[in-house]
Amino acid sequence: MKVSAREYPLSEIARLCGVTLHGDGSVIIRGVAPIDSANKEHISFVESKKRLVDPSLIKAGAIVVSPSLVDELQMFPLLISNRPKATFARIAQIFHGTEPPIPTGVHPTAWIEPETKIGENVGIGPFVCIASGTVIGNGTRIMAHCYIGRNVAIGSECLIYPGVIILDECKIGDRVIIHSGTVIGSDGFGYAQDETGEHVKIPQTGIVVIEDDVEIGANCTIDRATFGETRIKRGSKIDNLVTIAHNVTIGENCIIAAQSGVAGSSKIGNRVIMAGQVGIADHVTVGDNVMIGAKSGVASDIKPGMEIVGIPALPKEEFFKAQMNIRRLERLRMTVKDLESTVKRILKDWEENG
Amino acid sequence: MKVSAREYPLSEIARLCGVTLHGDGSVIIRGVAPIDSANKEHISFVESKKRLVDPSLIKAGAIVVSPSLVDELQMFPLLISNRPKATFARIAQIFHGTEPPIPTGVHPTAWIEPETKIGENVGIGPFVCIASGTVIGNGTRIMAHCYIGRNVAIGSECLIYPGVIILDECKIGDRVIIHSGTVIGSDGFGYAQDETGEHVKIPQTGIVVIEDDVEIGANCTIDRATFGETRIKRGSKIDNLVTIAHNVTIGENCIIAAQSGVAGSSKIGNRVIMAGQVGIADHVTVGDNVMIGAKSGVASDIKPGMEIVGIPALPKEEFFKAQMNIRRLERLRMTVKDLESTVKRILKDWEENG
Amino acid sequence: MKVSAREYPLSEIARLCGVTLHGDGSVIIRGVAPIDSANKEHISFVESKKRLVDPSLIKAGAIVVSPSLVDELQMFPLLISNRPKATFARIAQIFHGTEPPIPTGVHPTAWIEPETKIGENVGIGPFVCIASGTVIGNGTRIMAHCYIGRNVAIGSECLIYPGVIILDECKIGDRVIIHSGTVIGSDGFGYAQDETGEHVKIPQTGIVVIEDDVEIGANCTIDRATFGETRIKRGSKIDNLVTIAHNVTIGENCIIAAQSGVAGSSKIGNRVIMAGQVGIADHVTVGDNVMIGAKSGVASDIKPGMEIVGIPALPKEEFFKAQMNIRRLERLRMTVKDLESTVKRILKDWEENG
Repeated sequence: MKVSAREYPLSEIARLCGVTLHGDGSVIIRGVAPIDSANKEHISFVESKKRLVDPSLIKAGAIVVSPSLVDELQMFPLLISNRPKATFARIAQIFHGTEPPIPTGVHPTAWIEPETKIGENVGIGPFVCIASGTVIGNGTRIMAHCYIGRNVAIGSECLIYPGVIILDECKIGDRVIIHSGTVIGSDGFGYAQDETGEHVKIPQTGIVVIEDDVEIGANCTIDRATFGETRIKRGSKIDNLVTIAHNVTIGENCIIAAQSGVAGSSKIGNRVIMAGQVGIADHVTVGDNVMIGAKSGVASDIKPGMEIVGIPALPKEEFFKAQMNIRRLERLRMTVKDLESTVKRILKDWEENG
Repeated sequence: MKVSAREYPLSEIARLCGVTLHGDGSVIIRGVAPIDSANKEHISFVESKKRLVDPSLIKAGAIVVSPSLVDELQMFPLLISNRPKATFARIAQIFHGTEPPIPTGVHPTAWIEPETKIGENVGIGPFVCIASGTVIGNGTRIMAHCYIGRNVAIGSECLIYPGVIILDECKIGDRVIIHSGTVIGSDGFGYAQDETGEHVKIPQTGIVVIEDDVEIGANCTIDRATFGETRIKRGSKIDNLVTIAHNVTIGENCIIAAQSGVAGSSKIGNRVIMAGQVGIADHVTVGDNVMIGAKSGVASDIKPGMEIVGIPALPKEEFFKAQMNIRRLERLRMTVKDLESTVKRILKDWEENG
Repeated sequence: MKVSAREYPLSEIARLCGVTLHGDGSVIIRGVAPIDSANKEHISFVESKKRLVDPSLIKAGAIVVSPSLVDELQMFPLLISNRPKATFARIAQIFHGTEPPIPTGVHPTAWIEPETKIGENVGIGPFVCIASGTVIGNGTRIMAHCYIGRNVAIGSECLIYPGVIILDECKIGDRVIIHSGTVIGSDGFGYAQDETGEHVKIPQTGIVVIEDDVEIGANCTIDRATFGETRIKRGSKIDNLVTIAHNVTIGENCIIAAQSGVAGSSKIGNRVIMAGQVGIADHVTVGDNVMIGAKSGVASDIKPGMEIVGIPALPKEEFFKAQMNIRRLERLRMTVKDLESTVKRILKDWEENG
């Protein structure tokens, strides 16, 4: 486990996070841990009564809680937050999140072409290649084996993990995190069939724009646009092995879980949540705040705020009703069979006696 | 956006593409653009009446059209083609497609083992590693961080993007494009369970053969055969994050969209189209010209020319009828319930009055 | 095809594999091949009567067979095994599996930080980067372009293919094989939403532990735990493009086929088999010996020994019955329609005649 040499009195953590302190603010906190493994040097969190464990088993030095839990846990030093998990995340960042994974400076094995602009306090790791015309903002770290193409713009305070590939002309905002093996700016998948049945490649001349505070997982692929741009808007978080096709727009603060894919030119709204292995067809518009269940296939426009699931995706309740009905089908068939024989008997009786 | 410093009179473009010119051939074209953003220096295209926008809004300097659209657009300089999109793709290639992404020559940081044969006008980028016994054809570009194993054969005019890995003995044809992060020749997934429940690895001793004019997207994996070869035939185009298992054959001019997978030993015919996230089971034969809908699962042989979709995949009409029937199930259940009570009433009446 | 310069008399192979020899043990074997392409220098195998081809067409120099096939194939030199395919796999390993893909020694272009411990007979390829605090066991090979982070522990006799990334603090056992492009130790996908709708990153401070004899395919991603560890237990085999999320445990001797994904904190038992493109939701427990069909979605706990398939996954028989019932729905609708009109007729007759 990554270790932290830091320590803070609880009152200082309360101040840094802007939350209310309850109890002894002088207790020294040296790290974060989940509630079931925290010891007295750790701060932990409990989000809701449902997640509350027997207080006598809690060994944490302090706990972040929602206001409704203060009574149950009043014997502990507490930080009171309307969003205990978010506050806990911020505290974890204080202990762990800002440790630079590589030092500043350019590693002697890196290859940096002459016409590049590297900001201050930038760290560039072994075997990194940065092509001409590229600009790297202050405080950004680019770890080993990354390839940054020509005329790329990367903002400040970014963290680019080993083996990331960012191809020509793409633009990356500030505080962007990109995990290992991800490819930004690969060609979109565009062909036109000619009269002989061969697929003629349509050159992909656009770019990819990744806005501020986006995080992209490992081994993803974000294709450049045919013309114009593919864009991931600010604050969106993308898990591993996700593919975003050419000319797609992903809105702000979206969550896209692993192995999902969005096909060409689709427009995803703000705060959309996709669970794992979702597929969105091309030229589809998904409204703001839509929630898409795991493994769903979305082939048509979705209105804002809907919860959908299934292949093809249906409103959640409809999907579960359909699933229920499918499971009841065997019984329905039996009922119909019984009905058939009853009606046959009625008919026969009718004829005999009618 | 990638820029092009080229310019051609429209008549010269007509000549290069072998299509008919209508109107002023002396207009100078400096690039390509979609119809809604083209200006007078661009050539654009309109494929069909359905896609035709109000001509008064079109600002393009010239348009590629099908013969049926000449009347509507006769006020513009036109190129007339039976396949406007394919002709447009060829024109886009004239402006953009042939710009080499890296210069010829071997980068000083590349590691090339002694017994390799590198053709003429080859470009090899930073930190590339090429192992002994490998042959690279004329005009091929191998960008940064690629690893090319022992005894690999790569044809001429290929474009291998940064971070591609081609392992020992594999064979790549001419004009092949492989995007970043793709692995060619990883071991097939083959084990035999022994009496203790352990999985004994079956060495994967075969190779991968990629024929001419194939394009493979980013972060794909094409496994080597157990024995013999895994083969992607000429002209097939594969999108990102696709996996092709050991001993598979993909036919000619196939289109395989993102995140699809083909399991061991399956044989895919020519001109097969797979939409995104399709799965093909092992030892399946898919005939020529089959079209497979997104997210389908194919577990048995498919006859040539079929359009299939679903898990397990059904003929398209059957699938949509089944989906319709599932959505109607609630109503069917109600109908059966009504029938039951009617029949019960009849029976009761019968008994009382019979 | 990878070649082997080795040769053994059949009796020696019998001895090495601990199986019974039938017939001439002096025949010299120079390689392995499938039954339909083996020639007299090859040993092949036949697993069951179902797979037996016409003996007069077999050209193999020797065959591994189950005891039940000795009679049919007694004219050939045989090795008799209860698990012919596993024995064949071991023989294939004798001929091919142990050829080191790179020589021992550290390549001059590799970057190895000072405080690392490299064992004996280790091979480290071009452009490999190994960060400080890392320990590499005896006989392990780390091929070109791999990145091994700080304080990583890699056991002995491992084979790490080109372009693998193993991030800080992760632990890899003995005889582990990791294929190209795979990322071990990327951050888990963990955020907490704050009051403004933004996703606050939860630092991922745990590690990944890969136990002995695990094999992981190409372009996979195995995320580090939020706290604690993500663990793949001994002997499990993972195919290409698989993602394993933070805090997951995969049991011993599991088989996970390509493009499957396991979401956060799920616990997979021993000897579980997942076919391709399976998805397991988060916080799910899957019992020992469960078999999960291709493309299934598992959203709740599964008892040991079950065979399940579908989205959501059902017991196999239930799934196939449901599929059958769905296909019969059209007929059921017709039956109900007929019943309706018959009952209507009865009612009408009743009223007229009753």
